[in-house]
Amino acid sequence: MATTSKTYAEYLRLPQLLELQGGWEANDDAVSEDELHFIVVHQVFELWFKLVLRELRMARDRMSAQFVPDKDIPYVVRHLRRVNAVLKIAVNYFDVLETLTPLDFIAFRKKLEPASGAQSFQMREIEALMGLEQSERQRHGHSVDPADDIIRLAKGSPSEGMVLQALETARQELKEGRSLRAALHEWLYRTPIRDSCPSDSNDDEIVTGFLDQYRIALERFDKRLLGAFDAFISASDAPEPTQKKTVRTDASGARVEAEHATPPAGVKPRRSRAARIRAALLFIESYREADFLTWPNLLLDSVVEMEEELILWRFRHVRMVERTIGRRVGTGGSPGVAYLDQTTEYRIFNEFWAVRSVLIPAELLPALTNPKK
Amino acid sequence: MATTSKTYAEYLRLPQLLELQGGWEANDDAVSEDELHFIVVHQVFELWFKLVLRELRMARDRMSAQFVPDKDIPYVVRHLRRVNAVLKIAVNYFDVLETLTPLDFIAFRKKLEPASGAQSFQMREIEALMGLEQSERQRHGHSVDPADDIIRLAKGSPSEGMVLQALETARQELKEGRSLRAALHEWLYRTPIRDSCPSDSNDDEIVTGFLDQYRIALERFDKRLLGAFDAFISASDAPEPTQKKTVRTDASGARVEAEHATPPAGVKPRRSRAARIRAALLFIESYREADFLTWPNLLLDSVVEMEEELILWRFRHVRMVERTIGRRVGTGGSPGVAYLDQTTEYRIFNEFWAVRSVLIPAELLPALTNPKK
Amino acid sequence: MATTSKTYAEYLRLPQLLELQGGWEANDDAVSEDELHFIVVHQVFELWFKLVLRELRMARDRMSAQFVPDKDIPYVVRHLRRVNAVLKIAVNYFDVLETLTPLDFIAFRKKLEPASGAQSFQMREIEALMGLEQSERQRHGHSVDPADDIIRLAKGSPSEGMVLQALETARQELKEGRSLRAALHEWLYRTPIRDSCPSDSNDDEIVTGFLDQYRIALERFDKRLLGAFDAFISASDAPEPTQKKTVRTDASGARVEAEHATPPAGVKPRRSRAARIRAALLFIESYREADFLTWPNLLLDSVVEMEEELILWRFRHVRMVERTIGRRVGTGGSPGVAYLDQTTEYRIFNEFWAVRSVLIPAELLPALTNPKK
Amino acid sequence: MATTSKTYAEYLRLPQLLELQGGWEANDDAVSEDELHFIVVHQVFELWFKLVLRELRMARDRMSAQFVPDKDIPYVVRHLRRVNAVLKIAVNYFDVLETLTPLDFIAFRKKLEPASGAQSFQMREIEALMGLEQSERQRHGHSVDPADDIIRLAKGSPSEGMVLQALETARQELKEGRSLRAALHEWLYRTPIRDSCPSDSNDDEIVTGFLDQYRIALERFDKRLLGAFDAFISASDAPEPTQKKTVRTDASGARVEAEHATPPAGVKPRRSRAARIRAALLFIESYREADFLTWPNLLLDSVVEMEEELILWRFRHVRMVERTIGRRVGTGGSPGVAYLDQTTEYRIFNEFWAVRSVLIPAELLPALTNPKK
Repeated sequence: MATTSKTYAEYLRLPQLLELQGGWEANDDAVSEDELHFIVVHQVFELWFKLVLRELRMARDRMSAQFVPDKDIPYVVRHLRRVNAVLKIAVNYFDVLETLTPLDFIAFRKKLEPASGAQSFQMREIEALMGLEQSERQRHGHSVDPADDIIRLAKGSPSEGMVLQALETARQELKEGRSLRAALHEWLYRTPIRDSCPSDSNDDEIVTGFLDQYRIALERFDKRLLGAFDAFISASDAPEPTQKKTVRTDASGARVEAEHATPPAGVKPRRSRAARIRAALLFIESYREADFLTWPNLLLDSVVEMEEELILWRFRHVRMVERTIGRRVGTGGSPGVAYLDQTTEYRIFNEFWAVRSVLIPAELLPALTNPKK
Repeated sequence: MATTSKTYAEYLRLPQLLELQGGWEANDDAVSEDELHFIVVHQVFELWFKLVLRELRMARDRMSAQFVPDKDIPYVVRHLRRVNAVLKIAVNYFDVLETLTPLDFIAFRKKLEPASGAQSFQMREIEALMGLEQSERQRHGHSVDPADDIIRLAKGSPSEGMVLQALETARQELKEGRSLRAALHEWLYRTPIRDSCPSDSNDDEIVTGFLDQYRIALERFDKRLLGAFDAFISASDAPEPTQKKTVRTDASGARVEAEHATPPAGVKPRRSRAARIRAALLFIESYREADFLTWPNLLLDSVVEMEEELILWRFRHVRMVERTIGRRVGTGGSPGVAYLDQTTEYRIFNEFWAVRSVLIPAELLPALTNPKK
Repeated sequence: MATTSKTYAEYLRLPQLLELQGGWEANDDAVSEDELHFIVVHQVFELWFKLVLRELRMARDRMSAQFVPDKDIPYVVRHLRRVNAVLKIAVNYFDVLETLTPLDFIAFRKKLEPASGAQSFQMREIEALMGLEQSERQRHGHSVDPADDIIRLAKGSPSEGMVLQALETARQELKEGRSLRAALHEWLYRTPIRDSCPSDSNDDEIVTGFLDQYRIALERFDKRLLGAFDAFISASDAPEPTQKKTVRTDASGARVEAEHATPPAGVKPRRSRAARIRAALLFIESYREADFLTWPNLLLDSVVEMEEELILWRFRHVRMVERTIGRRVGTGGSPGVAYLDQTTEYRIFNEFWAVRSVLIPAELLPALTNPKK
Repeated sequence: MATTSKTYAEYLRLPQLLELQGGWEANDDAVSEDELHFIVVHQVFELWFKLVLRELRMARDRMSAQFVPDKDIPYVVRHLRRVNAVLKIAVNYFDVLETLTPLDFIAFRKKLEPASGAQSFQMREIEALMGLEQSERQRHGHSVDPADDIIRLAKGSPSEGMVLQALETARQELKEGRSLRAALHEWLYRTPIRDSCPSDSNDDEIVTGFLDQYRIALERFDKRLLGAFDAFISASDAPEPTQKKTVRTDASGARVEAEHATPPAGVKPRRSRAARIRAALLFIESYREADFLTWPNLLLDSVVEMEEELILWRFRHVRMVERTIGRRVGTGGSPGVAYLDQTTEYRIFNEFWAVRSVLIPAELLPALTNPKK
């Protein structure tokens, strides 16, 4: 763009931007104010999604480094908080969307078909980048990867290139362990626990010592939590997602126990990677007053808040659908209310939530440092 | 209160109000800032609940009148919008509550037991006053009426009188059909359809004529909706709530069909009361541009929005619980995340939602008035 | 756009849309995540502004009709409420924008120059379309029309055509009395008061009778309001904006009195157009329970709420500026905090606010209809 | 409270709490739903204010310590963020309050007199505890301390004891320098700059060295800021508030320059306390990536955000007043819109805002540590 005048309109590309709201006809006069509203809301969502993707990639990259410099964690926290602020605003968009009444929408709904918001490829990228595995969908009975549908529909369309590139990269990165979740797991795995690192020869012993003391303290606090604690901490490295969940939840809501009901038997192995990650989660969540843990603690909190906002977004979205079109099938045969409701049960950062079940009051905690040292 | 000075502090009873935040010890110094925060948030909820109850009672009473004056509907709409504004704010309270981290809460959580937010008797009153039947809970597998627990726990406590009176009145009114839902049904039942009232001798014929024409129009719009329409409109007067729902949802999310799968057989009876109510819903939702229907239309919308806000409140509440204490059991053995999640599936104004599945564009609608007249 | 596949991405023009966030370099890789965030927020604002403009034009056009059909007022109200929902969301955007700290912004601030958010031509269009006169700016000491600056800067830039066309049309329409404010005034002028219209021979007498009775009732309610009432109702048709306001406000904040300190002297003329408009405002605000006034009443309320949201937007914007760059001068020499703060004092729908100063309780109101009739 | 049953209702004192909404008559039946709504909103405000006061006192006390332990700053930040979340919610209350239309309010407005929201003694306590000096009010032409009015009105009322005790303590503490502002200033004064403390013999030299280098860097970045920088950094210890501001703002909005136009003349004195505080602010704001400054940086940001929320609350409050009663005088002769608007110009943490005018990009900053060392 070789422009001599550097105006606000050029910087934001307004001449181009403001000509993209004409719908199928590429003509503003052909869309009613209701349809324009519908288009604008969805374009706004997509712009935010682009920003969220950028921030998530940055966070993933920084947290993937072999060595994460101290100053990077505040940076990542600050930017995840931006993601959270964006998602919080996006949740409130439904207040605007719901100014479109059922009758208003029905007036142009047929025209949209077979397009559907379920085809947002950026939302699928966000899920993949955060680390939503196909197996997590399957646990909730959803056998189809929505990305497949989007790719199939994009075939032959002008947007095919953009859509395919986005979704295939997303899928590939997820497969190769390049999600934010994977990066955080890697970082957690290396987190010193009582000054011990996995590369230290007696790391397993030190971690075990910490966990044993923690378990005793937990028992004093509330015996009823011992089962949950044992299940949490005995995670094996078997790829979690392949474990099919048979019941949705049991009476007490103990999702975690159900999955890891079979602790590794026989000779005690070197602590599994998954188990050490969980021990690190427990360590960081418990000692936030230690100055070297204040930022890691905030980081975990930002991630949980991020997933919470995503879940709220999904839920608010389903309610808007239910309110606007009831329980009929969506445009383009897109999934209805029942399916969408189940997606609010997905959890990407499962362990980050689960650890909160087994925390204990600060005054009961074992010493922060290894007493044997 | 014989006061000579009429100050703001007297009007709001601040001396009394500001001495109630001391918790079990009735002593501000005995509660940490975190516990004070916890107490204040919950007292604020209860104050709002009191207002909501008052507004709901007013709405119920006005809509229960034998003859509802024209000016009452705008009044009721305005006040339901206040209820909605209150609920919307209440949903956002969780942003404040979540400044209490899991560790902060665990520090005084034991102390609270066995008290629990699940014991809010005003929330139970709100549910009853809106019209949540015990059978709706049962449809979602919840056989216990939470009011029973609250009453049992209140026995012998200083608040016993207040709690019992509130919950027994609520239960009695619900049983006697004095809920907002019942009042609205009564009003809908009497709503003129094509100028015909139930007391008119040929009302059944006129309503049938309208529905038949509507069905033809619907078929032209989208054949796939015929099943839902037939199910919707053939409601029988058998008390809906006794029909146990066997499956949670089917693939397409067709909750309504499942419930009313057995249309009344044999000789065609005079249109059931339930069916005429639904016909009125359809009529009001469809012709909002008729000036005598603009306010009834807004009224329906306010009610749906109200239930939506209540559902969002419940969902946000569960997420806060999950984020703060994970999936462990709540204080006082109160229900955990899985149970609470299921309560977001309750629907009080079921038909108000369902009608939105079968709306059609304005230009396809049959005539507003009876062509035979 | 001749496309064979009708996908979500085509409908929203995502391939084009998502390539406009590269800033001066038109290159995503050349902008940091902070700058991308800055660009996205501003593009989102501009998309909403486009929608707001569309809705405002629709409202202006419908309310400008010689005869406004009954069904149009609910339509306009519904759409102004959408505008209000959009503005409410836009106010909250500053929560997102403020995730950009002063240090973050300073890192790329120089690069933006001389572009500045003050150059948003759509915001200027919104102001003009609502009816913000240049004279209202002057009353607050702002002699320059910001549109002049924008036009000057756009000269020679690729966006020149779009900017000029937008701003010149806006200015021309405002000059020709084609703003929403002007349309509402026209409609108010014709509003029947006690069933009398301006075209009726004794309209002046009937309106005077109503106002006299109202004045007596007001006196009974609160004598202190008589001055404000007289000033309000004696508006002359001299173009208000030319009256330079000499003091910002007096001690009691009585802006209205100050402006109309010189009531028309000499022989009592036929009621001025401005005065009849105000009488109509008073009439509609007072008798909202009359069924033919419920919707006009809601319309006035939506307009006041709209201006309130605009004011809040401006105020929130200034605070964000103050928080981010302090009181230094903005990019592109754009106006600083002190200037922006003064823009929150602009009032477009001045009379709509002022009438609220002189309302009285319903039970004191004179009869709705003309007692002499 | 010797209770055997520990129920939710007892813990929250619901029997007592829910009997305080009866207004003057202490009788729920004597208040309309509109008045009940009015009472509840204001009681809710007061409950939040109580919590805010508690959190502010805690923050003040921790930051006043001779030595502030590292772990205290994250604690204070976390709790100020709660205050900010509360204030943010409180700002949104006006959405609820505005469901009370002008006509609704006028119906019971007379009855309230002479009580008025301006008599909230807790709001005055909050201002004092934050550190709002009477001189700051005077700078904006407000010569009366609103606390005087409240005390006068409370005389002889049942709430006299509570009100007097609260306001006299607040005033005394403010006078003795026991506000949050004073505590933060004390802490800032002691903050090491380039590892130098005020007690070090060469502290003045080191701070001067830092400021001189900063000034050179600033000049390279933007010469136009030199004046603001010099004014900012040359603050004298003369009690700022006694300096009467003669003009509201100049064209560029340079409030700070105006106040400190007379830099200390003659022999260069040991750096003033005020100037060293400002140097510390500049140091902390500039080097947030230094790990020992991440938390102090967040603390400053939380304080600015807190004041911003307070300002937004005030502004939203005035707009609600303007929308509901216009520009007439408030109940109890309470101040009208013009006065209230001016209160949005108060700044308690003046320097915290001002420093943001003179920040420069990170890559231009002088070295973090003393190069001479």
